[in-house]
Parts: sequence; structure tokens; C-alpha cells
Amino acid sequence: MAAEASRTSEARRDAVFGRWVVFSPARSRRPTDLKSHAPANPSPGAGAAAGAPKPSCPFCQGRESECAPEIFRVPAPPDASPWRIRVIENLYPALRRDAEPPAPEEAGEGEATPGERAVVGFGFHDVVIETPRHDVRLWDLDAAGVGDVLLAYARRVRQLMEHPAVKYVQVFKNHGASAGASMAHSHSQMLGTPFVPPSVTTRLNCMKEVFERLGKCSLCEFQSKDILVSETHNFSAIVPFAASYPFEIWIIPRQHSSYFHEIDKDTALDLGSLLRTMLAKLSKQLNDPPFNFMIHSAPFGVSSSCLPYTHWFLQIVPQLSLIGGFEIGSGCYINPVFPEDAAKILWELDC
Amino acid sequence: MAAEASRTSEARRDAVFGRWVVFSPARSRRPTDLKSHAPANPSPGAGAAAGAPKPSCPFCQGRESECAPEIFRVPAPPDASPWRIRVIENLYPALRRDAEPPAPEEAGEGEATPGERAVVGFGFHDVVIETPRHDVRLWDLDAAGVGDVLLAYARRVRQLMEHPAVKYVQVFKNHGASAGASMAHSHSQMLGTPFVPPSVTTRLNCMKEVFERLGKCSLCEFQSKDILVSETHNFSAIVPFAASYPFEIWIIPRQHSSYFHEIDKDTALDLGSLLRTMLAKLSKQLNDPPFNFMIHSAPFGVSSSCLPYTHWFLQIVPQLSLIGGFEIGSGCYINPVFPEDAAKILWELDC
Ligand SMILES: Nc1ncnc2c1ncn2[C@@H]1O[C@H](COP(=O)(O)OP(=O)(O)O[C@H]2O[C@H](CO)[C@@H](O)[C@H](O)[C@H]2O)[C@@H](O)[C@H]1O
Ligand SMILES: Nc1ncnc2c1ncn2[C@@H]1O[C@H](COP(=O)(O)OP(=O)(O)O[C@H]2O[C@H](CO)[C@@H](O)[C@H](O)[C@H]2O)[C@@H](O)[C@H]1O
Repeated sequence: MAAEASRTSEARRDAVFGRWVVFSPARSRRPTDLKSHAPANPSPGAGAAAGAPKPSCPFCQGRESECAPEIFRVPAPPDASPWRIRVIENLYPALRRDAEPPAPEEAGEGEATPGERAVVGFGFHDVVIETPRHDVRLWDLDAAGVGDVLLAYARRVRQLMEHPAVKYVQVFKNHGASAGASMAHSHSQMLGTPFVPPSVTTRLNCMKEVFERLGKCSLCEFQSKDILVSETHNFSAIVPFAASYPFEIWIIPRQHSSYFHEIDKDTALDLGSLLRTMLAKLSKQLNDPPFNFMIHSAPFGVSSSCLPYTHWFLQIVPQLSLIGGFEIGSGCYINPVFPEDAAKILWELDC
Repeated sequence: MAAEASRTSEARRDAVFGRWVVFSPARSRRPTDLKSHAPANPSPGAGAAAGAPKPSCPFCQGRESECAPEIFRVPAPPDASPWRIRVIENLYPALRRDAEPPAPEEAGEGEATPGERAVVGFGFHDVVIETPRHDVRLWDLDAAGVGDVLLAYARRVRQLMEHPAVKYVQVFKNHGASAGASMAHSHSQMLGTPFVPPSVTTRLNCMKEVFERLGKCSLCEFQSKDILVSETHNFSAIVPFAASYPFEIWIIPRQHSSYFHEIDKDTALDLGSLLRTMLAKLSKQLNDPPFNFMIHSAPFGVSSSCLPYTHWFLQIVPQLSLIGGFEIGSGCYINPVFPEDAAKILWELDC
């Protein structure tokens, strides 16, 4: 990794999650006598003949019947495959759409033990199959293809928003075994939860605090030039000032906007093009690393006073090393690569 | 894993971190077509002749000169090895003891961008070598041996507490490559930070809220019997009601107590015995899994009004699967094993 090991340590706190991150280039030189835990290169294409479905993959074209029910599909032109994108139910859902939704007051009632709560596992857990082909990665699609995947997310989020018990939808993608993926075929997921997840609450509180103190949205005014990786008409891609992970990237709408799911077709195309480039850059620089991406949006139905400081964005985190007890215990990350250095490398990379 | 796959999903919120966890036994049945990311069995003893130092390990007896400076050691009886425990500086520290400590007002001043902060990377990063022998794991020591390791932590925490710029000390242990460890020789670490880490703030706020609402400390009154794994005179070991990780264990002082570092010799012996048993149980049940443990204590110098709701504990998390984008994005975990089931299995296990 191209860390500048001569630079000294620094601790930074970010303005969105309120997290402290310790930057320590020297850490990247520490030795190891344990088997390498370097993430395996997860290229799904390897070994499969181009275009051929993998015999056992239920996400491949032609094996639709082995999947949980389809919610909708994005059709392909008549002479091509029958679909380009499918949004389906997750066959092993963490939350169940057929469970009884919690009554509005249920949470908090009848605490057997101080502060603890339990609700039935109601919610929605869906999978977005991004391509019918087993050997195609998201960034192998063209900008319009990636844009269509983003539009499929947005459409499904809007559907889930209609359900009164769904408070938030977390859209995310796992790529590669070390990033948690169990399926190699290019896909993403979303979970509609009956509660606002803890990180979302923390993020809103932190952005609110900044707004109240300084009268500014944390994400409208970030731009120190040295952390910019790329820009389009509607979006900036940056390595955030206090990135938790080496080579972490945030793609942020340049116009203030609270909800991802309100994205229109042109903006999705623009985002598709930038996301494609960023994934290609990470793949080239870090040798097809495992990664996750997450869309951070506002919870449904927040009051209008929250809108000035909620600003959605897409976070990409390559998984280059494992976290340890310090991170689990403190919530504070150690990052061996300064954001300025990562941004410079990614900016200069031709993709 | 012994999940009861017939049980339905449930979401639970814990009373200490305020985290929501989704329990979903069905998740453990999902298939994978990616190479197994099952954590490798990390036994350091494998391959090494009993008692022989590993040629390249700086933590082994006889190679002390290859380590960063020693802070103190716990001597062994005269006829044995020259030491039993060594507390040393980390040779690749994330935070540096020779950096200028931040001035009390520094954080928050001069925000270039709303809400962001940077301070020099001042702090302490130490390593505790738990045994001179490469082939001995922490739970291979006897109860007194584990107790002495705990007393070494406490002693070093008390030393760090003397430094006015140190706000918190995170004590933690990484065991096995998949738990982040880079060194196989049995050791733990601690980081003294010039800020209160985010998870500590969240924990305190959450416990405060419970206390204000119900007049009770979240950890003095947890005990539903069905999550108890074991008990000693001074401690309870439980699988918490809303465990984030399968087979996670918390060891909690039965008497209300805010600070780990105030532990006395007898209590440390008692804790040593329970910790030893819990690690042996996890090793037996889960085939020597990689794991982390973390000590959660109160930050230094909190006001006396905080003491009634801060209650220290030791958290052990086996690393059986990788987290994915849902957890990273939402801060909410998916756990396929209900705490009641894990506790029952661990309770019944003979160790
Ligand atoms: N025939 C079929 N029809 C429909 N759906 C099918 C299917 N076969 C498999 N699936 C589903 O497809 C999904 C594939 O998802 P990923 O590969 O992104 O990771 P997974 O959810 O397994 O776990 C990762 O992500 C989650 C969430 O972040 C973490 O909890 C976990 O630890 C990490 O490994 C699985 O959720 C699976 O249930
Ligand atoms: N000769 C020597 N003298 C003194 N010290 C020496 C030394 N040789 C090595 N060390 C230090 O010994 C420590 C061993 O620590 P661990 O094996 O517990 O994990 P590590 O800190 O590498 O990283 C894991 O834990 C941290 C903190 O949780 C995570 O940031 C990281 O991602 C994860 O891999 C290292 O920190 C290393 O710097």
C-alpha cells in the first residue's frame, strides 16, 4: 500500500458520524507471523466460460425458479436476455415480511429488564440481481447499466416506504468473501427495518449538532480540494477527511438532498457513471479488493426541521484488513493511509 | 452451529449500547458459492515443539531485545523463566507517547470544515505479553496466571490514568488471524486515547437514559436466568439478551462498580478463573475460534453523578462470520443464534 510511512500519527473526527479515526502510516509496516489474512481476490468470472451460467447459481439467467419470488424486473431489449435486473425476495431473510408488524407503541413497553426491548422480526429483506450473467461485475456494465441498478434500488425503496411500519431501508452491496458476501453473482441487498438503526440515529444527531452550532450542513461544505477524487455535474467523489477505512470513498450529491430514493433518471445516470469509475479505480489500484457499499439516506418521515442537515451519500469501503478488539470496543478505527494520499492516488489513476 | 432454525426472527435492543440486533436462525442455512471464509483455526502451538521459542517471534523468552522497551514485568519464581508477563511498548504504535499532547481546548477549535476536527496523534499503545512461551494460550494458564494478566492490565491502566491528557484506556485482546491478530504469541493490547471514544460515549448515554427513566443501572439487574452461563462469588458470565455476535459472552461484576482498574487481587483471581473457563468453553464448543475480548470501563474523571449507571464489564466475541454492508451501514447486527440457545449450550458444556 502506498502509505507515506514517514508522516506522523493524527487523530481526526468526522462531521457525519462523529467518529474518531487514528491515522497511523507506521502501522502498515508491522510484521505478522500468522497466515496472511489478506482478502482473497473474489473475481466471480474466474473459471466460468464467458457468458455461461454457473451450473449451481440461482441468480443466473435460466434459474429464476430456484429463487425466492420476484418483486419486479427491468426488462432487456427484445433480442437479448429476458431481463437485465431482477429485484427478488431474499430466500433466507433476516426480517420477515409475513411477521406481524410491531404496533407503534410496542417498543418500550413491558421492559422485563431495564432498557431492553424485543419486537417480532418484521421487515423486508430483498436482493437486487444486477445482471443475468455470472461473469459480469457491476462496474463491467456501462454507465446507463449501473444507473438502472440505482433506479431499481430507488424504486424498491419507494415501494417499501409505503408500508407504515417500515422506518428505514438500508441499501448495501457485499462484493467478495472477505466483505461478507456468500454469493459471487453480482448483486446487492436492502433491508427495510421496523426501527431506525443506531448508526442512522447517530449520524442524524451528529449532523444536527454541526448544523445548530455552525448553521451549515456537514456535507454541503466539505470540499478541501486535496481529498477530491472525481466530480460530475451532480456528484463529488471524495476520500473523507476522517475515513475509517483505507481508500474509503464517499459519493455525495453536490446539491443538498435528504433522500436517495427521490433520484431522477438523469441524476441516476450521472451517479452510475461516477460509481462505475470509482469501482473501476479501486479494482485497478487494489487488485479487485473485496468491498462493501452502503447508501446513507434519511429515515422516512423525519420532520421538516431535519431536512436542512440530512444529506444522503453513498459510501464505498474496500476491505483490506480486519478490524480488531480496539475497533470493536471503542468504535474508533485505525487507518494506515491518510485520506489525502489515497485521494491523490485515486485521482491520478486512469480509468 | 446449534441454532434452532425453526424459531422465527426477532429484533432486540440492548440496554448498554442501545444497539438493535436481528436474531434470525434461518440465516444460518443460507448457501454459499464463494470460498469458505470460515475463520482459520489459529492455534499458535501447532507446529512448535512444546516449550520451544519460535525462531522468529519477538514475544518469546530470550528475544526481549527485539521488542520495543519494557514498561514493567511480572517476575517468575527464581527457578523458572525470568518473567511470566511483560508489559511493553508497541513497536508500531497507532498513537505516539512522544507526540505533543493536545491542549485541553484544542479539539473543536479552528474547524476548517463544519464539525471536523484533527489533533496530533498523541497517546499510548502498549502490548501485554501474557506468557514467555509461544505454545501457551491464555486459558492454558491456571486461574492465578490469568488473574495476574488482569492485574497487569489494571496496573498499567492506573499508570496511564496519571497522564492528564489520557481520557480513556481501551484494553483488548485479538486471538487468531480472523480476529485481526498479526502475532500468534499470546498477548493483549491497550490504547490510551486523548479523547473519549465514540462507543464509550454512546454506552454512557444509553446507560444514563435507562437510569433516568427507570432508576436502575442497566447491568445490575440483567439476570433472566436463561442467559446465565456461569457464576462466581464476584462475577456473572452471561450471553447478553441482545448479543451482536453468536456465542458472545459478557462477564459482569455482581457488585456495582464503575472502573475495572480498581480491581483487587482476590477479585482478579476470581475473574481469572471465570475468564479461563469461558475461553475454554468457547474453544471447546467452537473449535478454537478466533475471538476478541474488550474491557468496557468508565472514562477517567467522569463526574460522580455518572457513577451510579456506569458498570464495567468484559465482553468476549468469537469471530465466526464476517460482517457485511448491512452492519457497516446501519450499526445493526444480524445474529443467527438466539442468546438463550447459546447460553444453554455453554452452560451445559463441561470445562
Ligand atoms: N435462491 C435464492 N433466492 C433468493 N435469495 C437467495 C438465494 N440464495 C441465496 N440468497 C440470498 O442471497 C444473499 C446473498 O447476499 P450476500 O452474498 O451479499 O451476503 P449475505 O447476505 O449472505 O451475508 C453477508 O451480509 C450480511 C448483511 O450485511 C451479514 O449479516 C453477513 O454476516 C454477511 O456474510 C444472501 O442473503 C442469501 O440469503
Ligand atoms: N517487536 C515488537 N515489539 C513490540 N511490539 C510489537 C513487535 N512486533 C509487533 N508488535 C506489535 O504487536 C501487536 C500485535 O497485535 P495484534 O496481533 O493483537 O494485532 P494488530 O495490532 O497487529 O492489529 C489488529 O488490531 C488492531 C487494533 O484492534 C486493528 O487496527 C488491526 O486492523 C488488527 O489487525 C501489533 O500491534 C504490533 O505492532
